[in-house]
Amino acid sequence: MWAAGAVKVRGCLAATSVPLRRCLKLGAAMAKSKFEYVRDFEADDTCLAHCWVVVRLDGRNFHRFAEKHNFTKPNDSRALHLMTKCAQTVMEELEDIVIAYGQSDEYSFVFKRKSNWFKRRASKFMTHVVSQFASSYVFYWRDYFEDQPLRYPPGFDGRVVVYPSNQTLKDYLSWRQADCHINNLYNTVFWALVQQSGLTPIQAQERLQVDEVTTKEVRLPAEMEGKKMVVTRTRTKAVPLHCDIIGDAFWKEHPEILDEDS
Amino acid sequence: MWAAGAVKVRGCLAATSVPLRRCLKLGAAMAKSKFEYVRDFEADDTCLAHCWVVVRLDGRNFHRFAEKHNFTKPNDSRALHLMTKCAQTVMEELEDIVIAYGQSDEYSFVFKRKSNWFKRRASKFMTHVVSQFASSYVFYWRDYFEDQPLRYPPGFDGRVVVYPSNQTLKDYLSWRQADCHINNLYNTVFWALVQQSGLTPIQAQERLQVDEVTTKEVRLPAEMEGKKMVVTRTRTKAVPLHCDIIGDAFWKEHPEILDEDS
Amino acid sequence: MWAAGAVKVRGCLAATSVPLRRCLKLGAAMAKSKFEYVRDFEADDTCLAHCWVVVRLDGRNFHRFAEKHNFTKPNDSRALHLMTKCAQTVMEELEDIVIAYGQSDEYSFVFKRKSNWFKRRASKFMTHVVSQFASSYVFYWRDYFEDQPLRYPPGFDGRVVVYPSNQTLKDYLSWRQADCHINNLYNTVFWALVQQSGLTPIQAQERLQVDEVTTKEVRLPAEMEGKKMVVTRTRTKAVPLHCDIIGDAFWKEHPEILDEDS
Amino acid sequence: MWAAGAVKVRGCLAATSVPLRRCLKLGAAMAKSKFEYVRDFEADDTCLAHCWVVVRLDGRNFHRFAEKHNFTKPNDSRALHLMTKCAQTVMEELEDIVIAYGQSDEYSFVFKRKSNWFKRRASKFMTHVVSQFASSYVFYWRDYFEDQPLRYPPGFDGRVVVYPSNQTLKDYLSWRQADCHINNLYNTVFWALVQQSGLTPIQAQERLQVDEVTTKEVRLPAEMEGKKMVVTRTRTKAVPLHCDIIGDAFWKEHPEILDEDS
Repeated sequence: MWAAGAVKVRGCLAATSVPLRRCLKLGAAMAKSKFEYVRDFEADDTCLAHCWVVVRLDGRNFHRFAEKHNFTKPNDSRALHLMTKCAQTVMEELEDIVIAYGQSDEYSFVFKRKSNWFKRRASKFMTHVVSQFASSYVFYWRDYFEDQPLRYPPGFDGRVVVYPSNQTLKDYLSWRQADCHINNLYNTVFWALVQQSGLTPIQAQERLQVDEVTTKEVRLPAEMEGKKMVVTRTRTKAVPLHCDIIGDAFWKEHPEILDEDS
Repeated sequence: MWAAGAVKVRGCLAATSVPLRRCLKLGAAMAKSKFEYVRDFEADDTCLAHCWVVVRLDGRNFHRFAEKHNFTKPNDSRALHLMTKCAQTVMEELEDIVIAYGQSDEYSFVFKRKSNWFKRRASKFMTHVVSQFASSYVFYWRDYFEDQPLRYPPGFDGRVVVYPSNQTLKDYLSWRQADCHINNLYNTVFWALVQQSGLTPIQAQERLQVDEVTTKEVRLPAEMEGKKMVVTRTRTKAVPLHCDIIGDAFWKEHPEILDEDS
Repeated sequence: MWAAGAVKVRGCLAATSVPLRRCLKLGAAMAKSKFEYVRDFEADDTCLAHCWVVVRLDGRNFHRFAEKHNFTKPNDSRALHLMTKCAQTVMEELEDIVIAYGQSDEYSFVFKRKSNWFKRRASKFMTHVVSQFASSYVFYWRDYFEDQPLRYPPGFDGRVVVYPSNQTLKDYLSWRQADCHINNLYNTVFWALVQQSGLTPIQAQERLQVDEVTTKEVRLPAEMEGKKMVVTRTRTKAVPLHCDIIGDAFWKEHPEILDEDS
Repeated sequence: MWAAGAVKVRGCLAATSVPLRRCLKLGAAMAKSKFEYVRDFEADDTCLAHCWVVVRLDGRNFHRFAEKHNFTKPNDSRALHLMTKCAQTVMEELEDIVIAYGQSDEYSFVFKRKSNWFKRRASKFMTHVVSQFASSYVFYWRDYFEDQPLRYPPGFDGRVVVYPSNQTLKDYLSWRQADCHINNLYNTVFWALVQQSGLTPIQAQERLQVDEVTTKEVRLPAEMEGKKMVVTRTRTKAVPLHCDIIGDAFWKEHPEILDEDS
């Protein structure tokens, strides 16, 4: 039926002196009436009102990506700064993000409780964040990895989680920081075993699973934690910080972040 | 409480001869026990089993993007080919996509009915697609726009829709093609009025809303439809086509696309 | 394949001296392996953690039901007391309900924020509430309508709504009470016009839509509001109250209702 | 603010000659404007279009209920017939149910693929079914249990599952029948051990878990399967059948059940 309609439209346009607008309308109406029912299959994915909306993204296969691009171990500061640059870009391009927190190849973005951006649709929140982050990663790569060309376009996955109270949001961010701390402790010892003690990666892994490693054996750097990357908004732009968000001190210094009315 | 734990872990590491592994475990256990409850807030977003899963992405503010990058009107073939290159990359990098269909600044990707990729989680499907597409767009830009530098990293939004039958899937794709046809007809006439008849864009818009435009007034190109971009898989790689997918002919020529067992 | 299995099981049982348990296991295993995949189609409907879960039910076609059972207008106190009896039964039979609020043919039940009853599955909350309410309505009917036999079994519909904060929960209950107040005001004037002024129902309806009715024309009862029915828990049982829940007074008198740790 | 409004409304009504309608409108408007935002917290729970919608209900604690009401073991035919009467009532009262299948204390109801009853909201489907079933159970109890008074109102739980194809729907129903068959085989042997061999229930349970029971030891009835209860619609009413729905025979005899256009 639509095919017939399309023919009519084409017929219309072929004839001289035919009013084009009528043709266009005709075709549009026919196409709509026949196929547009497929829109009914779209599900509503609105995030619960009055809740904090968090989008967390993770690099896809970044273990391999880090190897292919010779990231230094355990933390490559160029990569960390590029991640933060991407997070800043996301915060500047998208609306209603109040804070972002990252580590390694992951970043979490917090939208304000009463955000009504795209009617709070979860799919909009997560796809806008990950696509802007991913395109920025490639766009700004050269600013951080001058001598190291990007070999292929990286992927990221994302998810949306909704938190109903300030306490649960803070605990979410503390969970990510605790996780970062633990992972980093592990990685630091792992790479100390490899780089200082000359173990192979597999030997180091076994060592950490089976035996006890002591501080006699490996020297740990004074500043041992992974860079905690926090980006928050001032009146005019997104500003990166490197600070502790577990405990109350950070939140007392930055009451505006959780302030509903700011 | 975690803070106390972190101090203990640091204390551990400062002391000589302390078994590191015990320290690491201690800190991990404490962090988990206190904050990990926040994982319970993640919702399940599994796509209904045995259904076609479609991810559709759209460029964010591509009207502005096209202007800033001097896209030719109504269709910029460099931009269309770049879109198709990105779609091919998505199909090669991600699993279980059987066909992709695009037009203008949008692309739809169809995952096979029985895909169990990431346990069919909607968020995984859509974020992997849009992030891979977005990073590819920047990565391959120079291959298509040699003299035109990319001015800023573009964003895309995405959504997941689930179709329970072959018929509803085909109708979805026909809907997108019909929509493409109509938009393209409109744009072609619009730009003919601007480029051939010397109207301003606002005059052309008013003309199309209020008056009748006739084929006496504007010459339309023989091949007037926007490029329909279809990417499908052969045994070894993703292959772009430019063909009609409304009607049965396409599906009869390519039975393997909807074949469950291929 | 299962049919063959069933035959085997039957064959087993027909033979003498056959170990029955082996037969049972055989049949069970075959049935499971072939059909149990259909469980994968069940969607997860967990209510967001740490939120108040509200189930509201409404009588189905209660306008007709009230007519068929000669309910007095505008409020039938027998019907209201039966509703409250059912709400009490629901609160006594089901777990974790902290307060119930009703009016006319509707009742709302509030489950405590940290309830983990049936893993917070929305379908469990709503179906247990409406089925217990519906069976109780028939079971206790005779205690309230002695001379009026129940002519047919009534139906109810239900829904689940999730509120993330004490304020939004209180506002939900205030909304129901405000709605009750307005409806009751309308009904009271409507029935005064019918019963005191001798208008037909249709005339009364038109009068209320088109003209102004004044207090000169109809005498309104001193206690004009519909019975607000509140059921709350004491240490040992569910207790009905009739009081105002808009404003802070009620919540100050009953701090235990919203108290997380009670 | 609403409180103030309510006072005004009451003030209105107290004064002589005051237009009541204006008062009503005033109060309604104020209540709406302040509290009605809570409606935004209701989630959409539409069932995917063009799919079969199944509601399955189960008796709550029916093990205890059966004991308290002296149900005969392993199958009480009065109870089975009452279940079927309730299922018939549900099919007659609600719209768009094409078949119902039951066993023991559970029943499944299948709504037609293209049903648009209550816009396909899952909560409407399941609460209408379980409440109508529960109230019917009490209402019709005396018709089946003449000498056995109902001691308390029973509860039921329910769930909605969505099936995208005829095959998955048939497999769902086969799964329920297979499950019924297995349970019934087990129960029949269990009660034969108790009733014929004089074991206690706990001894019988252990016997079935640990040892092999042979057909030498217990006599099994010729017709050993639990009543499979099927209710389907004819042109005018819901009709109960007792037949096998695993395999194609049933579906070939009743093509109208899955026929979209019937």
